[in-house]
Amino acid sequence: MLGNLIFPEIEDLIKNRNLATLREVLAEYSPADLADLLTDIPSEMDQAVMFRLLPKDVATDTFEYLDVEIQLALMKSLGREEVSHILNDMSPDDRTALLEELPAPVTKQMLMMLTPEERSIANKLLGYKENTIGRLMTPDYIAIREDLTVEDVLANIRQFGKDSETLNVIYIIDEKGKLIDDIRIREILLSPLERRLSDLMDGNFVHLVANDDQETAVEVFKKHDRTVLPVTDNTGILMGIVTIDDVLDVAEEEATEDIQKLGGSEALEEPYSTISLFGMIKKRAGWLSVLFLGEMLTASAMGFFEHEIERAVVLALFVPLIISSGGNSGSQASTLVIRALSLGEIKVMDWWFVIKREFLSGLVLGGILAIIGFIRIMIFQYSFHTYGEHWVLIGLTVAFALVGVVTWGTLTGSALPLVIKKLGLDPATSSAPFVATMVDVTGLILYFGIAMILLSGKLL
Amino acid sequence: MLGNLIFPEIEDLIKNRNLATLREVLAEYSPADLADLLTDIPSEMDQAVMFRLLPKDVATDTFEYLDVEIQLALMKSLGREEVSHILNDMSPDDRTALLEELPAPVTKQMLMMLTPEERSIANKLLGYKENTIGRLMTPDYIAIREDLTVEDVLANIRQFGKDSETLNVIYIIDEKGKLIDDIRIREILLSPLERRLSDLMDGNFVHLVANDDQETAVEVFKKHDRTVLPVTDNTGILMGIVTIDDVLDVAEEEATEDIQKLGGSEALEEPYSTISLFGMIKKRAGWLSVLFLGEMLTASAMGFFEHEIERAVVLALFVPLIISSGGNSGSQASTLVIRALSLGEIKVMDWWFVIKREFLSGLVLGGILAIIGFIRIMIFQYSFHTYGEHWVLIGLTVAFALVGVVTWGTLTGSALPLVIKKLGLDPATSSAPFVATMVDVTGLILYFGIAMILLSGKLL
Repeated sequence: MLGNLIFPEIEDLIKNRNLATLREVLAEYSPADLADLLTDIPSEMDQAVMFRLLPKDVATDTFEYLDVEIQLALMKSLGREEVSHILNDMSPDDRTALLEELPAPVTKQMLMMLTPEERSIANKLLGYKENTIGRLMTPDYIAIREDLTVEDVLANIRQFGKDSETLNVIYIIDEKGKLIDDIRIREILLSPLERRLSDLMDGNFVHLVANDDQETAVEVFKKHDRTVLPVTDNTGILMGIVTIDDVLDVAEEEATEDIQKLGGSEALEEPYSTISLFGMIKKRAGWLSVLFLGEMLTASAMGFFEHEIERAVVLALFVPLIISSGGNSGSQASTLVIRALSLGEIKVMDWWFVIKREFLSGLVLGGILAIIGFIRIMIFQYSFHTYGEHWVLIGLTVAFALVGVVTWGTLTGSALPLVIKKLGLDPATSSAPFVATMVDVTGLILYFGIAMILLSGKLL
Repeated sequence: MLGNLIFPEIEDLIKNRNLATLREVLAEYSPADLADLLTDIPSEMDQAVMFRLLPKDVATDTFEYLDVEIQLALMKSLGREEVSHILNDMSPDDRTALLEELPAPVTKQMLMMLTPEERSIANKLLGYKENTIGRLMTPDYIAIREDLTVEDVLANIRQFGKDSETLNVIYIIDEKGKLIDDIRIREILLSPLERRLSDLMDGNFVHLVANDDQETAVEVFKKHDRTVLPVTDNTGILMGIVTIDDVLDVAEEEATEDIQKLGGSEALEEPYSTISLFGMIKKRAGWLSVLFLGEMLTASAMGFFEHEIERAVVLALFVPLIISSGGNSGSQASTLVIRALSLGEIKVMDWWFVIKREFLSGLVLGGILAIIGFIRIMIFQYSFHTYGEHWVLIGLTVAFALVGVVTWGTLTGSALPLVIKKLGLDPATSSAPFVATMVDVTGLILYFGIAMILLSGKLL
């Protein structure tokens, strides 16, 4: 937004290579704003020109705010020494995010540019599986032993705290490096200087485990309202910390994935604006084809009733209305249940609660649509005599089919995510296509079945 | 989860009113866990029994972690004095969230229970419109003047910091209360004791405005990777702070609303597990009826081609397949575009970029389905002679219709959210029904139109 407002001026300065003025103008902006500006510059060469003008520290901070795609483009334009400086200066969690995106040989090259110390940190973080908490963590924290006083701690921080990502919490470890407590910096700041840490300890702390899934981190942060949490290995040894800003990103990515899957494509895993056309089509064609193959069963189902349609073409007219109502009620139900599952509002073992209330909802919702549908047929009959002498029976067929299809759609839509979750799969991925297909095919059978009962001897 | 594991034991203790042991057992848990435990207790009376056993401070902390529904239930069971204690002790942002949910007369009663000081804070926070940043903020922050030294500040915090929600950042204000800088506590902790704050200041700070929408807060927190941000009024006077844990909740609520709206219902605004059956049906019936009314146009469109269906019933068999393919591709496109809009990855002014690539995607995706569809008809023809002598023409009709319908679905699905956003409405709310209706109706017209061209003189 900012970038769009002031962009013309800066673009001119870059174009005219008016670097002295540009440097002055850029000095006014924060790293986050500079990252925005850089992102808005179309030419990669111009991006590099602008980036080179930033003071070293600001450059690294700005670099950390950039999207990985732009980071990669920039690194191509920068010299080896500049890249090495940035890599060594970046905070470990951001660096891990960048290294992950590189092809393996390039990652290796980059790792070589790091100081031995930073390299060992990077290797350690890269050792954790994707989507584990280990990948989010940074080893920059302050851990001390319990026998220090508040004054010692403050002196300690002043001396050694420069590198740590957050000073909001101090971690207490035992002689083996095992986490035994956390103390918020506010406790320390509010205590008399001579108090010992052991007096401030309550042995009550929350921690994450490095091999756990990142989704766990989102839940724990939300439950305990923390801004930073310690990460241990399986034996309780303190390995690093995770800050909430990284978790906010994870939460948002998860929501995006859920939304995209519910919309019937695979998760794009890249911003819509930067994913390639081919990449996007690949993510979309799969499910669309699966859905299509499933929907082919509707042609077979319709074929089964071909003679009925021949004798009463009027029945065909309501087919789209009936199956779309089933589909809509099914997607309502599955969306609500999937979101409630992913927020932890309901669990698989609550299935009876869900099924009971969805069955009732389906009956009521189907009833509402049935009334609207019947009135619509009545109005058309009185106005245009569209449906002939048997219009009441046709209206009743449509109405009963709607109650049945909507109830069935609601039930299927709510039950399938629970079943899929129970099987250990992701409900967001797999529900939509199954619900759509099942509801459409069974909806058709139900509709024509009801028609055969109500209209036999009359229209059929 | 925790609640489920240890629940039987605690339930027994409550049932047998074995309060001494219960009190001991409860002392082991953190407020967040206690809140989980309370939530899992089915009877409101038992909840109150357990809650009363908690030490006063722990009780207030636990109360803050509870959902508003349970807070309200608990307050009914507690005595006036207990309620007054909790209300006065709660942090202002959590209290505001609770007071908002109460009917106006009850809110008034509650406000009366507060000390004059706390009441004025609550009234101030309640004065901001719903969904503004003002509602999220807490006035518990530390603001000081720039002429102090680091040592003064630390002493100051030790003396007056008890009430402040976070000590991670210190705010510098001028004599009028205007915010002029923020200094992270790490800067202060890392500086020599005799250094003046004015030397640490850089005049570069990010702030929120109390009347702005809460969505702005999510964006600013993400952009600047902060855990706490100051809030000013329109003139720059410091009013309070917002912490990231409240913003994480806002981000999640927003995603939930988007997901529920995309699923074709109104946002529930309450957890699925606690909303009443009637409340939920109300949220769902509206859009379902609107969609149904829209889909009624399909019956009219089909009616328009009644004679063609009579002469070639085979055409009717593919109607569900064709319109569901249009619907699926439309919902893919609209979901992706809506999420990209809400993440700020694309803006309305990028419409040409979006339309161009969705048009191409639609052609390719439609082409893929057309090939699958044609092959399916070919296989059935060779196996069962289902479609008679004109099967190639029928296959081509279906194939061309699929290309047309999928391209049209993709275009409509991507363009409508942009149009709706341009009109200042919420794309998540209104896109699904319009896309579905438009694509289904025009899909039918397209399909029968192509059939009339290709099959006239043959089947028609």
